[in-house]
Amino acid sequence: MNETTWKTAITEINPNEVRLRGYRIDELMGEITFAQSIFLALKGELPPAGVAKMLDAMLVSSIDHGATPPSTIAARTAVSTGAPLNAALAAGVLSINRYHGAAIHDCMGVLEECLRLFNETGVSMDIAARELLADYQNKKKRVAGFGHRIHTSDPRTAKLFSLAEELGVADEGVAMIKALRKAFLDSGKNLPINVDGAIAALLIDLQMPRELANAFFIMARVPGLVAHIYEEQTRESPMRRIHPSDHVYDGPDPRDLTQMIRQL
Amino acid sequence: MNETTWKTAITEINPNEVRLRGYRIDELMGEITFAQSIFLALKGELPPAGVAKMLDAMLVSSIDHGATPPSTIAARTAVSTGAPLNAALAAGVLSINRYHGAAIHDCMGVLEECLRLFNETGVSMDIAARELLADYQNKKKRVAGFGHRIHTSDPRTAKLFSLAEELGVADEGVAMIKALRKAFLDSGKNLPINVDGAIAALLIDLQMPRELANAFFIMARVPGLVAHIYEEQTRESPMRRIHPSDHVYDGPDPRDLTQMIRQL
Amino acid sequence: MNETTWKTAITEINPNEVRLRGYRIDELMGEITFAQSIFLALKGELPPAGVAKMLDAMLVSSIDHGATPPSTIAARTAVSTGAPLNAALAAGVLSINRYHGAAIHDCMGVLEECLRLFNETGVSMDIAARELLADYQNKKKRVAGFGHRIHTSDPRTAKLFSLAEELGVADEGVAMIKALRKAFLDSGKNLPINVDGAIAALLIDLQMPRELANAFFIMARVPGLVAHIYEEQTRESPMRRIHPSDHVYDGPDPRDLTQMIRQL
Amino acid sequence: MNETTWKTAITEINPNEVRLRGYRIDELMGEITFAQSIFLALKGELPPAGVAKMLDAMLVSSIDHGATPPSTIAARTAVSTGAPLNAALAAGVLSINRYHGAAIHDCMGVLEECLRLFNETGVSMDIAARELLADYQNKKKRVAGFGHRIHTSDPRTAKLFSLAEELGVADEGVAMIKALRKAFLDSGKNLPINVDGAIAALLIDLQMPRELANAFFIMARVPGLVAHIYEEQTRESPMRRIHPSDHVYDGPDPRDLTQMIRQL
Repeated sequence: MNETTWKTAITEINPNEVRLRGYRIDELMGEITFAQSIFLALKGELPPAGVAKMLDAMLVSSIDHGATPPSTIAARTAVSTGAPLNAALAAGVLSINRYHGAAIHDCMGVLEECLRLFNETGVSMDIAARELLADYQNKKKRVAGFGHRIHTSDPRTAKLFSLAEELGVADEGVAMIKALRKAFLDSGKNLPINVDGAIAALLIDLQMPRELANAFFIMARVPGLVAHIYEEQTRESPMRRIHPSDHVYDGPDPRDLTQMIRQL
Repeated sequence: MNETTWKTAITEINPNEVRLRGYRIDELMGEITFAQSIFLALKGELPPAGVAKMLDAMLVSSIDHGATPPSTIAARTAVSTGAPLNAALAAGVLSINRYHGAAIHDCMGVLEECLRLFNETGVSMDIAARELLADYQNKKKRVAGFGHRIHTSDPRTAKLFSLAEELGVADEGVAMIKALRKAFLDSGKNLPINVDGAIAALLIDLQMPRELANAFFIMARVPGLVAHIYEEQTRESPMRRIHPSDHVYDGPDPRDLTQMIRQL
Repeated sequence: MNETTWKTAITEINPNEVRLRGYRIDELMGEITFAQSIFLALKGELPPAGVAKMLDAMLVSSIDHGATPPSTIAARTAVSTGAPLNAALAAGVLSINRYHGAAIHDCMGVLEECLRLFNETGVSMDIAARELLADYQNKKKRVAGFGHRIHTSDPRTAKLFSLAEELGVADEGVAMIKALRKAFLDSGKNLPINVDGAIAALLIDLQMPRELANAFFIMARVPGLVAHIYEEQTRESPMRRIHPSDHVYDGPDPRDLTQMIRQL
Repeated sequence: MNETTWKTAITEINPNEVRLRGYRIDELMGEITFAQSIFLALKGELPPAGVAKMLDAMLVSSIDHGATPPSTIAARTAVSTGAPLNAALAAGVLSINRYHGAAIHDCMGVLEECLRLFNETGVSMDIAARELLADYQNKKKRVAGFGHRIHTSDPRTAKLFSLAEELGVADEGVAMIKALRKAFLDSGKNLPINVDGAIAALLIDLQMPRELANAFFIMARVPGLVAHIYEEQTRESPMRRIHPSDHVYDGPDPRDLTQMIRQL
């Protein structure tokens, strides 16, 4: 082991043996979902019971949000010039930043600030939330995780919270964002918790480090971007001018999941 | 609808309603895994029974392969200079190309060629495989999906095939790659089917278009790259010289999945 | 020197001495232009007399083409989400591919094909051009370097060719593309040589390898992309919807260079 | 002009007319260098007399720094997997960040801070420099633009400063960094001004906004990265393990510029 030898704790490779965080990857296959393996890769441990289903729901919730997000436009613009799929995907991923996708990260920061107040001063969650909100409003700072350009009551948020209760995953993060929602209402603002806010609360309850918030959104969105890239390649002419909003959906009509589920 | 109006069949966005390929995304959440939602996003339909578990196993198999793949080195090199996570990830994704990650795509091409021969001429799979192999050997072309730098018997391959049998997913793709393996043996070469070859065979049996082969590898590897980027950020000094192979694994000792599984 | 020692012929670094292709970089500074140093870096030798001015003119010709090229749209889309400048630039560079920017590369291929015909068979340039054109028209292949979406007579082309004559740089490449232009006219098509065609002809006469054609366009366009990224950062709100064509120019009014030049 | 119409002040495109910041681009060609056109694109005006040569020298100084910078390693790693040139270049550009390439930006910040002190309080440059240095040393902050891993007396710095004097470009920026150098010496530290520090001082004297500091380094380095990408493509096998430092230079022997210059 010379001076340049460095260390990694993620994956161990030996002839005919690949171990992720200590587990044989061929033993993991068939036993855990991709979502669970993501948690294992990032956190070093398999997720506790219930968390697997929660992770799947969180990742599904953010897999795509249609044709208007700038990451989608950038990926389609790149592939429209003939970029290979990975380059178009990179252009999309490079367009996920402070103003697009970062709400999870920012909202985790808000919640962590509230929880510090709650844990250190002994005030109730409601009071911690109210104080933070007042402080942000004084400083004219936006509270990330609330409000949405399109949705007044985001159905993804409601579902994430009901699953979190059902699976026993909801903890201080979820409680605190609900306290913030109440503080908004008390201040006369009926601002909904958006999907990013819900995911932020859940990532806190899953003890995921905030540095990985953006990664969580990106991992969820990558397959959606791939779908857009492939659709652009197969449906459109190269070098078209891609209008950033003037499009229509012409996919399958609304359909009911109930019947399908029986067969899965 | 003016001249610039364009169409997309992936996601429909209405106030308080997000539909992926026709299904309400809040109904999908909690019912399907992230892997199933990837299939739905890309193929437009939910996967048939059995396929969900197969997809999870395929994605888990490729989530990471340690510190030496060039995509890992490129991502670590970028983040070591202070790149934000998405930029480092993009550098990694940009390093997945013809010589790294493309074996799935190339092997699908080989299998499709064999299957055309099989379906169009009526010869047996064994003969189709033997003819293709002879042709490739004459032209000194490499048959993608066979052999591995490190593994002589890739445990991921065996597991993918046993799961495919068990789940009823294995079809012509799997049969054909096994015929090719036999043809290699008959020609005196004991070349193992590698994990990329196994995934290629399965993607054919899942009727995934070959254009998405590389995407499949990338989607699987993104979380692994994120783990390496985060480890580099949290364990290493900026601007270190990253040796491309001289490293050691210092993560959890080998551990057994059996006990854990009971709790998941 | 162990087994991993590798070699580079570009730059030699010693304490207090940096040599590019053998020349001290501090001696090059003040003596050669950036354009000459680009030639030196890529070709390994300083350009012959006259070529410096030609290179500058070629790079200036392609520095920007307004707001509609997809590389500009992609870079602006990325920076509009809060991407750092280098990430937005990468998104732009990733959008320079087969259908945008590659005409130089493709036209060099056409010219090299014509010149092989000319040099190997002894036919005149006019006949070589006519044969290639007929062949392309039979195969319904487009001849890169001719025609333009906007310009019927590209002023950049005329200037590049007049400079090339004046500087003694024009050789077989320029002669051959003019023969092709004539062949088009003879076939009844008044298709102008576009700026990419002119640059392709000149790169052949500068003996630049075709593999670097795309690089030449990218190197020229990088500063233009930087100007657009900076303008987006300083003039626009984040996350705006960037229409791909509906914009107006509001920069300096048309102005005459003659007076300025005296002072430079 | 509808609600989505947006504005740009960079380039005006009309049929058969391309104007950069008001000047016909075909008139600029042959009259100004690429470096001057970069200044025009970014600043909106042609550079004053003397500045053209200064810009060329600054860009030449940073065109390449051998095989070890992480941007070079990332670009070579990507292309080694078969990435197209633009994708490998993007991987390189994505590796230019806070710890690599950002010294120009950081040093401009230091100099601007000193100059504010100088201009607002009326103290001498020497005192402003000494106060800032003391403050940074108290806070254990590094002063960017001083010191170098390899060079104790960077020949590029000396040349940039002598050219700046000769061309009449040197102003407060250059004077202030020299005051800082003196303050270091007085505090017992013989730290050389590095090339990034020299460029930072000159960008201040050219009134280039600090937001473009990183862009300046990137624009200069892009051709160097292209040279490395092309060398990797043409000299090396795919998928080699690229040692981050163990390489040797085997290009042209040291050679003298004097004889060449006569012919340029």
